[in-house]
Amino acid sequence: MLSTAEAMDIIRRGADEILLEEALIKKLESGKPLKIKAGFDPTAPDLHLGHTVLINKLRQFQDLGHEVLFLIGDFTAMIGDPTGKSATRPPLSRDEVLENAKTYEHQVFKILDPEKTTVLFNSSWMGEMSAADMIQLSARHTVARMLERDDFSKRYKGGQSISIHEFLYPLVQGYDSVAMKADVELGGTDQKFNLLVGRQLQAAYGQEPQVALTMPILEGLDGAQKMSKSLHNYIGITDKPDDMFGKLMSISDELMWRYFELLSFLPMSAINKMKAEVDTGLNPRDVKVRLCMEIVERFHSRQAAVSANESFVARFRKGVIPDEIPEVLLSSDGNGLPIANLLKEAKLVSSTSEAMRMIKQGAVRINGERVEDRGLICVTGSSEIYQVGKLRFARITVD
Amino acid sequence: MLSTAEAMDIIRRGADEILLEEALIKKLESGKPLKIKAGFDPTAPDLHLGHTVLINKLRQFQDLGHEVLFLIGDFTAMIGDPTGKSATRPPLSRDEVLENAKTYEHQVFKILDPEKTTVLFNSSWMGEMSAADMIQLSARHTVARMLERDDFSKRYKGGQSISIHEFLYPLVQGYDSVAMKADVELGGTDQKFNLLVGRQLQAAYGQEPQVALTMPILEGLDGAQKMSKSLHNYIGITDKPDDMFGKLMSISDELMWRYFELLSFLPMSAINKMKAEVDTGLNPRDVKVRLCMEIVERFHSRQAAVSANESFVARFRKGVIPDEIPEVLLSSDGNGLPIANLLKEAKLVSSTSEAMRMIKQGAVRINGERVEDRGLICVTGSSEIYQVGKLRFARITVD
Repeated sequence: MLSTAEAMDIIRRGADEILLEEALIKKLESGKPLKIKAGFDPTAPDLHLGHTVLINKLRQFQDLGHEVLFLIGDFTAMIGDPTGKSATRPPLSRDEVLENAKTYEHQVFKILDPEKTTVLFNSSWMGEMSAADMIQLSARHTVARMLERDDFSKRYKGGQSISIHEFLYPLVQGYDSVAMKADVELGGTDQKFNLLVGRQLQAAYGQEPQVALTMPILEGLDGAQKMSKSLHNYIGITDKPDDMFGKLMSISDELMWRYFELLSFLPMSAINKMKAEVDTGLNPRDVKVRLCMEIVERFHSRQAAVSANESFVARFRKGVIPDEIPEVLLSSDGNGLPIANLLKEAKLVSSTSEAMRMIKQGAVRINGERVEDRGLICVTGSSEIYQVGKLRFARITVD
Repeated sequence: MLSTAEAMDIIRRGADEILLEEALIKKLESGKPLKIKAGFDPTAPDLHLGHTVLINKLRQFQDLGHEVLFLIGDFTAMIGDPTGKSATRPPLSRDEVLENAKTYEHQVFKILDPEKTTVLFNSSWMGEMSAADMIQLSARHTVARMLERDDFSKRYKGGQSISIHEFLYPLVQGYDSVAMKADVELGGTDQKFNLLVGRQLQAAYGQEPQVALTMPILEGLDGAQKMSKSLHNYIGITDKPDDMFGKLMSISDELMWRYFELLSFLPMSAINKMKAEVDTGLNPRDVKVRLCMEIVERFHSRQAAVSANESFVARFRKGVIPDEIPEVLLSSDGNGLPIANLLKEAKLVSSTSEAMRMIKQGAVRINGERVEDRGLICVTGSSEIYQVGKLRFARITVD
């Protein structure tokens, strides 16, 4: 059994903000299992490592004996885009919601303990709510405070239109906390405002306000922008073991330590020990392998991790893998790029004729596999490790 | 059968704005009976002449063959003040709503034709509405446009709090027009914004937008401030015939013409003829009597009007009634005023001892009745005609 101080160390790890720490300490000291809420959008259940930052924190709460309320925000998803402006947000049917929920469960139970997880749908209480109830709820918040939210404030000042229903969604999310009697709500830093609405509404409804805990947004493989599918800098948690391993091996050392903090379940003491070892000469690549192994094992298996490692080493031949593989993003206007042009633009060759010659010589590899076809088109959205000769490497993403 | 141009002349009489006139002309020319909407708050069904300005316009539409939809806004009244801040706005029960509706009908059917009036309650459609429907509805309007409403704009800029549900109420009122398929909505000038929301929502729901017709707010007996119960410058439509008659006789000539336009059912041609007669020597008092008679007859009977006229003349003795009786407002801090002080403050006497002497001589009258009691307290909220001797008159309101 850990002390409250030890529990707080685990909870604080990687967290951006805890509002309020004192309130959380008080709740922890009550000795009761806490209800830890996290909300998920049922429209996009394909998770990548960026999403798991928050799920990992939920798992840490479970390990400390608390209960996770995994909330699927299906109420608003079933409304879709009520302005009718966005063809990309059609309303979800009940069946689609349930199907997406299954996909979520399949993914998150690779991290979460199903025994300590309750999956909830906010349509169960919001679907019962009348227009009059909605009016009562909306009376609990003011226009001025809503306009303080960063994105609303910017849009209002910039003359961009905000539909009134957009003011109701944070209230729905906040009311979820009331309906669930949440003790703690987790969200990304971009959710801070909404988590605080939950605190305020719980107080208005006579409940002890939840603690809001925000987790940072994970950087993508480029180490610069946030991890995101549309930026092609992500690792999906259903990616194949070899892809996961290879992509993770391509990150910078600096990003590796960030990933250790936010994605690894190794205690911080062990991570700090590795840092010290790297400082005194250990090759960071060896440490990176450990991170790759842990992640692949989590989403696949120990055996898959071992094979992925072996295959990575075999493909890139022991000893010649560079410590850092440069990242290159090339634009293709959606049409893909012929391999010779791609290699030239990425400066792995000096001309397309050099590219052709190197391919003919069998000196060009993609993810360690020799390229045979000189007319190969590298498709938009692909992100692979290209190698020319023994020493020229780059991870090239075609946008 | 009147031409559209003649109908428009009647509709335009006294109106502040018609948005849009061309649309109204088109609707009139369709030859179909139009649905004329007007909304009323069920919390305060005591009508005064100020309220009848709008009801008279409804009657004019009925006389032109159209159907009045008398809407009782019980949906929001049954919610009360959802912020819980105002103890003066408790939620109304269904029974109270129905009782107030009866009181309304009793009053408005003195003006409206019951055969061409449908009384509706917006709870019949709003009560069916779910929170999801409310969200869909609120997506039809933007925050920026709502903040353009005068009162919201002032409060927002002045740092005064606006609860989010206040943004939903204009949408509810606008949606009423959709549910009722209103062709025209009438309201006070202060309702212009809300009437336009109705237009916009009807268009959003695929209906032909209603025409918004605003009527001015009627000035009270003082001719300065709006007629209002709390300003003690009103004539209630359930006031006794003598009170109605006497109060109306006290108004200025200028105000009389305004009242003729907004309260009388005489055609404008007849009113303009009287104006011309007054310009060439007719005593305006004789014209004022005609207005008094019409109003008392409307809310009581022809016979009551005749008696009220006779009693007024008898009380003030033929020939000595001044053409205009000055209005005096005295403050009493809610405790009423002793008659001697009241007469002195209103400058009908030069001292309280003169007041005592005049009362003893039988020379002081209230509404023509001799005052016997020198210790009389004139209560707060009273508004009567005081007379000292034959020539000194004032309508004194004790606040």
